[in-house]
Amino acid sequence: MEYITSAKNQLVKNIKKLAKKKYRDELNQYVLEGEHLVEEALKGGADFVYLLTTDGGLIAYRELIQHVDEDKIRVLASHVFEGISEIPTPQKIMAVVKKQNLNSQNQSYRKILILDNVQDPGNVGTMIRTADAAGFSHVILGLGCADIYQGKVLRAMQGSQYHIAIEEHNLLTFIPEQQTNKMKIYGTELNKDAFDYRHIEMSDSFGIILGNEGQGVSKEVLALTDANLYIPILGQAESLNVAIAAGILMFSL
Amino acid sequence: MEYITSAKNQLVKNIKKLAKKKYRDELNQYVLEGEHLVEEALKGGADFVYLLTTDGGLIAYRELIQHVDEDKIRVLASHVFEGISEIPTPQKIMAVVKKQNLNSQNQSYRKILILDNVQDPGNVGTMIRTADAAGFSHVILGLGCADIYQGKVLRAMQGSQYHIAIEEHNLLTFIPEQQTNKMKIYGTELNKDAFDYRHIEMSDSFGIILGNEGQGVSKEVLALTDANLYIPILGQAESLNVAIAAGILMFSL
Repeated sequence: MEYITSAKNQLVKNIKKLAKKKYRDELNQYVLEGEHLVEEALKGGADFVYLLTTDGGLIAYRELIQHVDEDKIRVLASHVFEGISEIPTPQKIMAVVKKQNLNSQNQSYRKILILDNVQDPGNVGTMIRTADAAGFSHVILGLGCADIYQGKVLRAMQGSQYHIAIEEHNLLTFIPEQQTNKMKIYGTELNKDAFDYRHIEMSDSFGIILGNEGQGVSKEVLALTDANLYIPILGQAESLNVAIAAGILMFSL
Repeated sequence: MEYITSAKNQLVKNIKKLAKKKYRDELNQYVLEGEHLVEEALKGGADFVYLLTTDGGLIAYRELIQHVDEDKIRVLASHVFEGISEIPTPQKIMAVVKKQNLNSQNQSYRKILILDNVQDPGNVGTMIRTADAAGFSHVILGLGCADIYQGKVLRAMQGSQYHIAIEEHNLLTFIPEQQTNKMKIYGTELNKDAFDYRHIEMSDSFGIILGNEGQGVSKEVLALTDANLYIPILGQAESLNVAIAAGILMFSL
């Protein structure tokens, strides 16, 4: 095990760089922080580059750490660890892992959540976690979605990137492709003339599209769907948070 | 209309102080930022103390601003406005309004969302917005919940504090009181031995309790309920975000 006591250490500098998408893409790596996320990565068979902890962490998380190759473990002085942590009161465990391949095209689509330009990292992460909990098979990220390898998404996902397949596709080609495979694709709209979600007859294989926080699903995408659903608002709120709408739809369909 | 060009102006200093709960409680005021929230406050009949804008805002939001007494309007130099804004790219409109009374005890409870020690401001705000959208009559805040008058809660609520009654109560006395009025109160638990929410027979008048992000609803509170509900998890996620769980329950019951 290697000890790192200086914040000027090259590895420490590289980890700070991984806060930026540019470097995550370049190095094909990202950073997971905290016991739960590191544990999910281990269980999920993630490809570990480094496991970072402190002297205290070696003791507190010893059961977890024993599953990581010793030559990948780096023990940081507490102040160095705190300097790279994104969390106000950090648990003293962190991992650098290889990114998964989001470009594969799986043929076993069953129930899929499709995100069109969802920009808020907390919303993207929460929706992936909810899709996992709802037993969906895939999440498809269209253009403009928050990068799933940033801290806020990772913390909201709670490790669901290891449970559910996540892919990036151009929705304007992806949707018609699935429809030729007889999958129904449903958009969502804040429009009372759209189809009340409670009246739709669901099959075992379908996709639901949720859209941007401000603009909703884009017109080009809505034009491709089999039907567009809405959730009736009973009170005076103008709309629902997009992650809440996704949760209601995924658990009712 | 009064112009303010210095960041050292006493009003500017006071508004900065309102970022702290201590001062919000002391002055019985809070700050709303952005066109939508200010508009909701006007529509909701909020008691305005000040409306703050800039020269540009006077033009951009003139329709809104004309509904506010002129002696309450303060026009800030842009750099002064940006200095008190909590938003990265602020809309140049903000209001200081009087807090509502959360201590009343309403007797017209119908469908109520009860929050027990929900600490994340985004979760509290999103749940109040969802309760509004679901046509609930009340939200009850128990001990330990995030203060609803802080910026993150206000932005997530989207003005729902003017649509739905919000009250603060000690749940250990509030729950039995409602039960003596024949209202059923349901807890929520991450426990497969709890009652599947899809099998519950709902009446027109009930309460649902959601709990802390880490610990859930406290044992003392769960012990008082008529039944405790759970949402079956179909995938590998260990749990749902509390605001998502609240949304699923409120829209299905």
